[in-house]
Amino acid sequence: MLGKTMRRIVASMGVLAAGTPALLGDEGMWLYTNPPLARLKERYGFEPGKEWLEHLQKSSVRFNSGGSGSFVSKDGLVMTNHHVAADALQKMGTPERNYYRDGFYAKTRGEERKCEAMELNVLESIEDVTARVEGAVKGDMKPDQAAKARRAVMNAIEDEETKKTGLRSNIVTLYQGGAYHLYRFKRYTDVRLVWAPEQQIAFFGGDPDNFEFPRYCLDAAFFRVYENDKPAEIKHFLKWSANGCADGELTFVSGHPGRTNRLATVAELEYTRDIGYPYLMQRLYRMEVLLNAFSARSEENARQAKELLFSVQNSRKARLGGLGGLMDPAVMARKRAEEAKLREAAEKDPKLADAKGAWDKVAEVYKTRAKILKRHGMLEGGAAFASDLFGIARTLVRSAQERDKPQAERLREFIDSNKQPLELQLFSEEPIYEGFEILRLADSLASLSEQLGHDDPLVVKVLAGKSPVDRAAELVNGSKLKDVATRKKLYEDGLPAVTASKDPMIELALLVDPESRELRKVMENEVEEPQRQAYAQIAKVKFALEGTSTYRDATFTLRLSYGPVKGYQEAGKKVAPITTVGGLYERSKGQNNKAPFDLPPLWAKKKDSINLDTPFNFVSTADIIGGNSGSPVVNKAGEVVGLIFDGNIQSLVLDFAYSDEQARAVSVCSQVITEALRKVYDASPLADELQGK
Amino acid sequence: MLGKTMRRIVASMGVLAAGTPALLGDEGMWLYTNPPLARLKERYGFEPGKEWLEHLQKSSVRFNSGGSGSFVSKDGLVMTNHHVAADALQKMGTPERNYYRDGFYAKTRGEERKCEAMELNVLESIEDVTARVEGAVKGDMKPDQAAKARRAVMNAIEDEETKKTGLRSNIVTLYQGGAYHLYRFKRYTDVRLVWAPEQQIAFFGGDPDNFEFPRYCLDAAFFRVYENDKPAEIKHFLKWSANGCADGELTFVSGHPGRTNRLATVAELEYTRDIGYPYLMQRLYRMEVLLNAFSARSEENARQAKELLFSVQNSRKARLGGLGGLMDPAVMARKRAEEAKLREAAEKDPKLADAKGAWDKVAEVYKTRAKILKRHGMLEGGAAFASDLFGIARTLVRSAQERDKPQAERLREFIDSNKQPLELQLFSEEPIYEGFEILRLADSLASLSEQLGHDDPLVVKVLAGKSPVDRAAELVNGSKLKDVATRKKLYEDGLPAVTASKDPMIELALLVDPESRELRKVMENEVEEPQRQAYAQIAKVKFALEGTSTYRDATFTLRLSYGPVKGYQEAGKKVAPITTVGGLYERSKGQNNKAPFDLPPLWAKKKDSINLDTPFNFVSTADIIGGNSGSPVVNKAGEVVGLIFDGNIQSLVLDFAYSDEQARAVSVCSQVITEALRKVYDASPLADELQGK
Repeated sequence: MLGKTMRRIVASMGVLAAGTPALLGDEGMWLYTNPPLARLKERYGFEPGKEWLEHLQKSSVRFNSGGSGSFVSKDGLVMTNHHVAADALQKMGTPERNYYRDGFYAKTRGEERKCEAMELNVLESIEDVTARVEGAVKGDMKPDQAAKARRAVMNAIEDEETKKTGLRSNIVTLYQGGAYHLYRFKRYTDVRLVWAPEQQIAFFGGDPDNFEFPRYCLDAAFFRVYENDKPAEIKHFLKWSANGCADGELTFVSGHPGRTNRLATVAELEYTRDIGYPYLMQRLYRMEVLLNAFSARSEENARQAKELLFSVQNSRKARLGGLGGLMDPAVMARKRAEEAKLREAAEKDPKLADAKGAWDKVAEVYKTRAKILKRHGMLEGGAAFASDLFGIARTLVRSAQERDKPQAERLREFIDSNKQPLELQLFSEEPIYEGFEILRLADSLASLSEQLGHDDPLVVKVLAGKSPVDRAAELVNGSKLKDVATRKKLYEDGLPAVTASKDPMIELALLVDPESRELRKVMENEVEEPQRQAYAQIAKVKFALEGTSTYRDATFTLRLSYGPVKGYQEAGKKVAPITTVGGLYERSKGQNNKAPFDLPPLWAKKKDSINLDTPFNFVSTADIIGGNSGSPVVNKAGEVVGLIFDGNIQSLVLDFAYSDEQARAVSVCSQVITEALRKVYDASPLADELQGK
Repeated sequence: MLGKTMRRIVASMGVLAAGTPALLGDEGMWLYTNPPLARLKERYGFEPGKEWLEHLQKSSVRFNSGGSGSFVSKDGLVMTNHHVAADALQKMGTPERNYYRDGFYAKTRGEERKCEAMELNVLESIEDVTARVEGAVKGDMKPDQAAKARRAVMNAIEDEETKKTGLRSNIVTLYQGGAYHLYRFKRYTDVRLVWAPEQQIAFFGGDPDNFEFPRYCLDAAFFRVYENDKPAEIKHFLKWSANGCADGELTFVSGHPGRTNRLATVAELEYTRDIGYPYLMQRLYRMEVLLNAFSARSEENARQAKELLFSVQNSRKARLGGLGGLMDPAVMARKRAEEAKLREAAEKDPKLADAKGAWDKVAEVYKTRAKILKRHGMLEGGAAFASDLFGIARTLVRSAQERDKPQAERLREFIDSNKQPLELQLFSEEPIYEGFEILRLADSLASLSEQLGHDDPLVVKVLAGKSPVDRAAELVNGSKLKDVATRKKLYEDGLPAVTASKDPMIELALLVDPESRELRKVMENEVEEPQRQAYAQIAKVKFALEGTSTYRDATFTLRLSYGPVKGYQEAGKKVAPITTVGGLYERSKGQNNKAPFDLPPLWAKKKDSINLDTPFNFVSTADIIGGNSGSPVVNKAGEVVGLIFDGNIQSLVLDFAYSDEQARAVSVCSQVITEALRKVYDASPLADELQGK
C-alpha cells in the first residue's frame, strides 16, 4: 500500500531535504507556482494555460489524515481511495455493521454520513515570503536565537494571514531553509461519506498483489463536503472523461506527495543499499517466518499475529522494492553524476565554501551509523525485546526518570505535548497474549545473542543463565504488567516505585537502560545532528545552483506530476499498461477464488451484468510517492481518467531517485468506477453525478 | 520429519566420530553387544536377560532405504512408518491410483504388493574384528599404504563371511578406527506392502505441526516379507501389548539411528551456535519468505515452489531446534565438562600425547571455516546462483574439465562410480520454469552483492553492469540449457565445446569457476582434512578413557535406547505426554478443517465408530535421531506399545548432546493402530494378526 509504506520508509531514514538537478524523462513533483511548462512543451507539445493549471489546482483536495482527493461535481462530491477513507469507515462501524469490510452507499443525500474530525483543504494560493522571514534574522544572532526569531516571524505571518483571509495559512520550509512559502487553504470541515466499496475489491489480491501489476483494485471512495448543512457549491471541479484512460495517453496527477529523499548523497545510498536495508530485511525475513509459522499452527494464532504480519510483509515488500532500485547501476550512476555537479559548484563558488566538506561529513556519519547499527537497533531500537510488555516496562521506567526534568532536557517522547497519546497507549486495554509475547521475545532474545555475541556482558546479564525461550517465558509469565491497574499504579508512584519494583520486565528495562540511552545519545549527537547540518549545506548548494529551475523534494504540499499511460518490461517480459474487469474474474478463478483472491459476493453475482472489457487499473510514468494516494489523474482536457492508489514495487526507489524504466504509478481507471457504480452497486445516480448526466 | 531432516543436518556438518563420557538421564544409543544393564538396574530396577535382548534384536529390521522396522507376527509382518514406506508407495502408484496419498490395504495375502528394490536386513550377530584388521597394518607403512591394507583385509573378511554364513556381512568402523565390528545380517528381498493409511493422517498437521507436540499422526505402515513366494516364518517377532502405552511407563526403542555428532568440541558447538547456524538460518528465512510470497501470487506458482518450500521449512525448523538446544546453558556446560575430562586425560597419559593439541586444532579449523563461510557458501556452495540452469551449467563445465584426469585427482562427484546418477540428473526431463528460475536467481544474485560487497571484483563481473533482476532475466531467458538435447551435445563435445560456448549460463559458470575451486581447495585441505585428523585423535582419547563403558555415536547400526513416557514443560506450560483420537478431531475443528489440518474423508465419516479416548501419539525420553523412524517401542515385557516417527523440536539438539529436559521422541501409540485398523479401515484381519487373535 502506497500511503502506509512510505510513511514507514521515511520514518527509518531520518529527515532530509530538497531538490534534484538533471531531470530524467517525466521526472518531477512540480509546485503549481513553478509548473514544468518548458518540459511539457518539449516532450509532448502541450502547453497548459494559466486557467488550466488554476482549475486543476483548485479542484485538488488534501485530507488532513494524509491523503489526496479531488472535487468531481459542482455539488461538492470528492473522490479519493478506499484506503484513504479507511479510518473514517472503521470509526463509523458498529458491532452490527462493518462498513470498512462491506462498503457503504447513501442512496439519498439524507443518508450521507458525517465523518468526525475529518477536514479537507483546498490550496487557494502560494506566496514566497522568504525575504520577510530571512529579514527577521540579524547577522549577529547565534543559531538558536536565529531559529527563535525565524519561528516568531513565521507564526506572526500565519496569524495575520488567517485573520486577514479567513483561510488556513501555513508556511512551508523548502530546501532546509533555502526558501519559505506561505500556503493559503480553504477548509471544509463538514465531510460526509457517500459511497465506498467492499474492502475485498478495494484491496483485491491482498498482500500477494500489493505493489504488483497487473492489478484489479477498485480502491475508490466518495465523500461530499457540506457548508451550512447543504452540499457545498464548488466552482472548480473535474469533469469525467467520456473515453477514460488509454494506452500512451499523456496524463497529469495533482496531489500531495509526502516525502522524498532525492538529495541523499551517494554515501547514504550506498549505506542504505549495502548495510541499512540488508540489515533491516534480514530482521523482516526472520519476523515474517516466525509470524507465518506461528499463524499456521492455529486460527487463533493467525488472528493474534495478523496485523503485525501484514505490517511486516508490507515493509518487506517496500524495502525490497527500494533495494532493487538502489541495485540498478543506472540509478546510482545518475546519482553520482548529480553529486559531482554539486560538489564542483561548492569547490568553485567561494560563497558555498562552507559546504565543501558536507558530502564527506555525510559519509563519515554513515560510518558511525554502521558501527552502532546492530547494538543501537537491538537495545535502543528494541529489536532484542520484541514484546509489548517490555515496551510498557520501558515506558514506565523512562517516564519516571524523565518527568521531573526540564522539558528541553527530556527524551522527546516524554515532553508534555506527547503526554496524552503516551498515556492513552500505556493504559490501553488491548489484550496481551502471553504465548505470542513469549514467541516474539524468545526469538528476539536469541537474535540478541547471535548479533552481539553470546559472551557479551550485557547479553549474559539479559539472559541470566537461561536459554532465550526459558528466559522469555520467565519474563512474560512473571510480569504483572498485563494488568492495566498495575501499570497505572507504577506510573503514578513514579521513580521510587519503579526502581523498587520486582517485576521482571521492569528489572529488564532498568538493566538495559544505561547502555541503551548511551547509544541513543551517540545516534542523536554523532549521527543525526551532523547529518542534518551537512544536508542543510548541500541543500544550499543545490538552491544556489538551480534555484527554481527544478522541482523540490516532496513536502506534503500540492504538486503536479505527469506522464503517459505506459507498460514496461519485467524479468524480460512485457507488462501491458491496462487491465480489464475480465482480468479480475480470471485472476480470481486462477486462484480458485481463495482469499485474498476471493470475489466479493456482489461481484460474483453481477458478473453477467458488467462489461468485462471495461478497463480496470492502469500504470503511468508519473512521479508519485506516498501521500499521492487518492490523487486524480486527468487528461490534457483536464478530465478525470483515473485515480492514483499505489505504485508498483519498482516505484519504491522513487524515494531516492526518479526512474521511468520500470517504476510506475498505479491508478484505478475512471471507466471501471462508473461501470461498477451502475452495474454492481446499483448506484446510477452517483455515476450520473460524475458523468454530469 | 525425523529421517529427512537429520540427513540434511548431517550433510552440513562434515563427518565426525564416536562416543560420550558422563551419561545424563536416559542417555544412550546402545549396541546390543554392550547393553546398558547397570543403568537400567540402577534407574529402573529392571534387568533384561540375554534372551530378552536377543529377541528384541532379532525382531528389529533395517530398511535399505534408511529407516527402521520390526517383525510383529510369525508370518513375517513388518511394522514401520508411512514416511519410511513413502518411496515404495510412490513407485507403486499409477496415473489412476495414488497410494501415497490415498493409502493401501491388501485384504488378502494375494493382494499384497511386491515392492521393487526393497531389502530388509535383520542383525544376526556382531563380532569384534579389530585385532585382525589392525594386524594387517605394518608399522612402517605410510598412511595411504596403511589405509589400503586395512581396506583389503576388511574386504577379505566381508567376502569370507558372506560365503561362509550366507549372511550379508559388513564391517563397521567405530571411533574413527578405534574399533572394527563385523555385522552379519539376514536379508529379506521379497517385501510386499500390506497396509498404509492416507498421507493426510500419517502427516496430519503438515509443516505447522512438524516437530511439534501435541501431535495426531498415524505415521504407520505394514509390509510382509516373503521367502519362496510364501510369507516368511519368523521366530523372533514382537507381541502386541494388550494395554499399550501409559504415562510414566518405561519403554525401549530398538532401531537404527543414523548419525550423531556428540564428540563435537566446544569450539565446534560455539561456531555452530554463533556463526554456522545463524548464517544458515538467515538464508533459510530469506528463501522461505521469497518462496512463500511467490506461492501466494498464484496456484501455479505454489505448485512450482511447493517441494522446495517444504524442504526449506523443514530445514528451518530443524536448525531452529538445534540452535535452541545449543543456546541452553545447561547443554553447553555439560559439553565443557566432558571436554575438560578428555583434555586432562590427553595431558596426563603419555600414550595420548599426540592428541593434546587436537581441541585447539579444531578451534583453529573453525576460525578458518568462519573466514571463508560467506564466500565459500556463495560461490562453491552455489548460494549466489540459486538456479537449476546454473547447476546444469556448472556440471557441464566441470564434467568437461574433470573427465580426462586420473580418478584420484578428480572432484569426487565426477569419479566413474558417480557417472550414472550424474548423467541421470543432468539429462532429466524435469521441467524448468523460467519465472521461478529468474525469481530465485535474482534474489540470490542480490544476496551475493550484499554479502560480498557491491564493488567486489567478482561480483562486478557476475552482475555485468546490470541490476540482479535484469541480470537474472538475461541469464535465464538467454540460456539454451533448458533443452536436454543441447545439454547432451555440450556434454558429449566436452571441453572445447564448453569453453567456446556462448550460452550465458555456461559463461557464468566458467567465470566463477577458478575462485570457486580455490575456495573448495581451502575448505578441503585447511578445514575438512585437519578436522578429520583432530577428531580421530580425540576419538582415541575417548576410547582409551572409556572403552566400552559407554555407547558410541550413531552409525546406522542397530541400537537400543530406553526411557519412560513423560511430558515436559514448554514456555512455562505443561505438555501432557499422550494425545487421544478425540484431540485429533478437536485440532481439525479448531482449524476449521483447513489443510493441512483437514481430516481424510474416511476419518470424518468414522468419527462415531472410533473410540475417542484411544491414545494417539506419545512422547518419551528415549535417545533417538533420524534413522530411528519406524523403530518399535516396547515395554518391559518386550511387547509393542508404540512406533517412533518423529522427535519434538527440542530433540533436534540430540545431534550434539542428549538432553531429557524437553527433548522427546514422538511415537504412534499401539492402541490407535489397532483401533484405526478395525474402526476406520475395515482391516480387522490385520488387527487380529497383530493382536494374535
